[in-house]
Amino acid sequence: MSWKVNVEKKRAQLNAKIPSEWRIDGGKLELLKAEKKNLDLNLDKLCTEAENEITHSTILKLRDELIVKNLTCYEIAIAFCHRAALAHQVINCLSEIMFEEALKKAQKLDEQRPDFLPPLYGIPISLKDQCNVEGVDSTCGYLGRAFKPKKREEESLIVRHLREQGAILYVKTTVPSSMMATDTVSNTFGITLNGLNQNFSPGGSSGGEGALIAARGSLLGLGTDIGGSIRIPSSYHGLYGLKPTDSRLPYLRVDNSFQGRELIPSVIGPLARNLDDLRYFMDVMVNICKPWIDDVKCVPYHFDSKSKELHKNYVVGIWYGDGVITLPPGDVRALRMCEDLINSTLGMKAIRWEVPVEVNKELHEIAMDTDIADAGIEIRREFEASGEPIIDILKPVILEKGAEACSVNQWWALNKRTYEAKIAYREYYNSLEPTERPDVIISPLTLTPFRPGDMLATTLRYILFVNVLNFPSLAVPITKFNRNVDGQMDTSKAQTEEDRIVSNYWNELISSDSIQDFPLSLQIMSPTYDDNEVCTFGSWLMQNLQIS
Amino acid sequence: MSWKVNVEKKRAQLNAKIPSEWRIDGGKLELLKAEKKNLDLNLDKLCTEAENEITHSTILKLRDELIVKNLTCYEIAIAFCHRAALAHQVINCLSEIMFEEALKKAQKLDEQRPDFLPPLYGIPISLKDQCNVEGVDSTCGYLGRAFKPKKREEESLIVRHLREQGAILYVKTTVPSSMMATDTVSNTFGITLNGLNQNFSPGGSSGGEGALIAARGSLLGLGTDIGGSIRIPSSYHGLYGLKPTDSRLPYLRVDNSFQGRELIPSVIGPLARNLDDLRYFMDVMVNICKPWIDDVKCVPYHFDSKSKELHKNYVVGIWYGDGVITLPPGDVRALRMCEDLINSTLGMKAIRWEVPVEVNKELHEIAMDTDIADAGIEIRREFEASGEPIIDILKPVILEKGAEACSVNQWWALNKRTYEAKIAYREYYNSLEPTERPDVIISPLTLTPFRPGDMLATTLRYILFVNVLNFPSLAVPITKFNRNVDGQMDTSKAQTEEDRIVSNYWNELISSDSIQDFPLSLQIMSPTYDDNEVCTFGSWLMQNLQIS
Repeated sequence: MSWKVNVEKKRAQLNAKIPSEWRIDGGKLELLKAEKKNLDLNLDKLCTEAENEITHSTILKLRDELIVKNLTCYEIAIAFCHRAALAHQVINCLSEIMFEEALKKAQKLDEQRPDFLPPLYGIPISLKDQCNVEGVDSTCGYLGRAFKPKKREEESLIVRHLREQGAILYVKTTVPSSMMATDTVSNTFGITLNGLNQNFSPGGSSGGEGALIAARGSLLGLGTDIGGSIRIPSSYHGLYGLKPTDSRLPYLRVDNSFQGRELIPSVIGPLARNLDDLRYFMDVMVNICKPWIDDVKCVPYHFDSKSKELHKNYVVGIWYGDGVITLPPGDVRALRMCEDLINSTLGMKAIRWEVPVEVNKELHEIAMDTDIADAGIEIRREFEASGEPIIDILKPVILEKGAEACSVNQWWALNKRTYEAKIAYREYYNSLEPTERPDVIISPLTLTPFRPGDMLATTLRYILFVNVLNFPSLAVPITKFNRNVDGQMDTSKAQTEEDRIVSNYWNELISSDSIQDFPLSLQIMSPTYDDNEVCTFGSWLMQNLQIS
Repeated sequence: MSWKVNVEKKRAQLNAKIPSEWRIDGGKLELLKAEKKNLDLNLDKLCTEAENEITHSTILKLRDELIVKNLTCYEIAIAFCHRAALAHQVINCLSEIMFEEALKKAQKLDEQRPDFLPPLYGIPISLKDQCNVEGVDSTCGYLGRAFKPKKREEESLIVRHLREQGAILYVKTTVPSSMMATDTVSNTFGITLNGLNQNFSPGGSSGGEGALIAARGSLLGLGTDIGGSIRIPSSYHGLYGLKPTDSRLPYLRVDNSFQGRELIPSVIGPLARNLDDLRYFMDVMVNICKPWIDDVKCVPYHFDSKSKELHKNYVVGIWYGDGVITLPPGDVRALRMCEDLINSTLGMKAIRWEVPVEVNKELHEIAMDTDIADAGIEIRREFEASGEPIIDILKPVILEKGAEACSVNQWWALNKRTYEAKIAYREYYNSLEPTERPDVIISPLTLTPFRPGDMLATTLRYILFVNVLNFPSLAVPITKFNRNVDGQMDTSKAQTEEDRIVSNYWNELISSDSIQDFPLSLQIMSPTYDDNEVCTFGSWLMQNLQIS
């Protein structure tokens, strides 16, 4: 079968770019794979102390070191290239390797060091596979898109901006074929594992990105989010992940599925270990790069990278569930932590965010209807182009062969329905007394991680509605799963089969040791599309949760 | 045939709302209809001097008079109701009459006069038929939508805002069925004539609105524009018409065709006799009403109603044609007037705006492909609902029965193509030296008026691309057609059949006296979506053209 030959060819092409001195030998590799939980510590042992200092740092600290010449761009680049190469061998998180170009660029930056260093000078930034970079593929997990290296003029605008600001491009990271799934699997690259805990999926679709950053192979990378694809891998790796409002960062010449399907826009945004880094990055990409000059979809605005002060009479909505899926004890505990902190803070108030259940249901149904609008025609065509078989995780978005795509009139009707649902959501917000209208809303996100293969045991009900509403949302790691505190759920009370599946899966996970200390994240959303507000509040929240 | 019965019923319902003392008797009416050019003067003779003073005034002056109590709301309301009733009998521009409610409201405002008058207190505002008002229809020219008066909760958000600001709602104005034509004709209401010169069409689709304002039956009204529907009637009546960027004024609960077809958004905006009035109106609707609170499609921004000062080194692009349709002498003369004025002004510069012809063509084709995307299914269905026959002017957007609508995948491809065309347009702008990039562009608009029935002898090539690009555009009356100056075109040089049709029509019109002194308008566009800029420059231009 020729498609398998091409898979081998693509994998060989990728692996050939790992220098032999960075290869982990077979026996040691087996051990690293077998020990599911301590990848970070184990990789530290394979790197030099100097490298570990770099990969354990932050972008802002590295920049300081570069400015005072304590570090060179080359030292930083090699530390991250090495670490990424090691991590990849264990968790299979890379789709393209550009070490050679990266190290050359770093060397050149050191040799031609200007007096004023551009804001990302010498900072390695990892890229989700969709970002077009000259000379390498953007397969998006499709074998049919392999061996078609991008030309310079095809480079994503955001990649050009990264180059202009001095960033080092060194890897692209794995995605599930089509990006329309929350696990990270493709025929071309196989399965990517979680970078913190190999019992679990890294989530998706920016799964390779999340796993790489968790394994310290990157400090910050670009993902995209059309249905949780930034927030889910962030959640599953204890990272910060910002899904901006549409039109904040440029998507120009970023490859994707369903291009032109604008109803629920895919957005590009950062995943990072450190929230200050993330905000600094946004500052650079917005205020310095001014993406609206080249990308007509972007709107001019100012990103505030620093404020951690909240205004007076700050109101936070706490969302204890949509009335459809019962929240597991872990999420309830995490939400309570936030609620208690806010209510014990002078000048702040937590209110219960209680959107009518029918509105929640409608938003979710719109997302589902949107995803199957073409009955899977486009994705099927992509698989057929290479002859590779359709992968299981895409079954929810591919209807049976012969199923009809919706007509253009039905599509317009779905657009209208979506607008009406957004208005209904806004009407709930406006129905609150002005002093009760939340500045931000804290919402559940992923509820539980999942083991490879178990994707359908989790729910997207706390995820997709955010994309339909086009709210900015920041994934934040609030606490960790704790078997000693978070008990079993009473599944006899489950309202629906869907609710029962989620509760059962919680019970299954919480009864095993593998979930202990796995990060438990929530998301901070702005009901008024205020991307700055979710970050400012995020900084405040994380600072104060640590103190309390 | 039952549909004809319903037409009679609807017309009777409308006409019954004209008080008998405002009816023009048959003989006089015939004379008014026969004398094609002097409606304004002739209507003056049918009104009192006090009424004429009011209808010849401006919103800003009327507001001053209201503030100092020189006028009452009732006096203003009755002047415009009377004038609108008279105009309607000659040019057939109204679809709904609300005189009774308006006069009651005006009386109430006078009786309960507050100390501070809301910004539109006692100001009559006319509405295109699409705007939903409690108690009356929004037929949109479809008989099947008649006799379905809107409920209070169905009122358009912008109508609610008008009420809140004290405006008097007294009429709704005619549109072509579906609004997808640039003439104003429907089975239900018949043909609307131009309000300045009854030899010609009022344009469309906000044709009733343009005609009413030209006849001084209104000072300012709301139209919508998905393909010139504000700018064309403005052009044909020497009015100012602002097609804002999408998401500036709220479209929430404004009825329309193709709801949910977001690719080329229909926008709502004002047509007015006076540019200061128009800017004042925008100020109120944006800065005071803050439509983004209720309509999630609206973005927060500030509208600058007053500035007439241009910044230093101001650059104006002058567009002498798209390379497809040769500009007639009238447009060339109007553009030269602007170019000369600018080049003779210190600190300003006119540059030739020369978008590649392929980009112009592509933008126009996208608009055409968009309009026939559903092969006419929706419009056909609307006609079938009442049994009325499809009207001739809709033939360009209704394919033969059985023609297939595009698939959802084709629709997404059209969306993608549109984005690429917008990027290509932007790339041309960015390809200019920064000091040559225009702050605004002056573009041809309608080229010629047309006589009822001749719609297809005009071109939309200087109109539709603006909607595809989503640029804000202000129609401005630059000069008048002048047979003594504007000569015949050499049609042997026409490049295409389309070009020949337009040139031939120009020659036909310019050889007859009916076009003499008909307004000749251009449009001012902002290539960076700056709605304020087109108005500020518009004010500067009109002030300085008058001086020069």
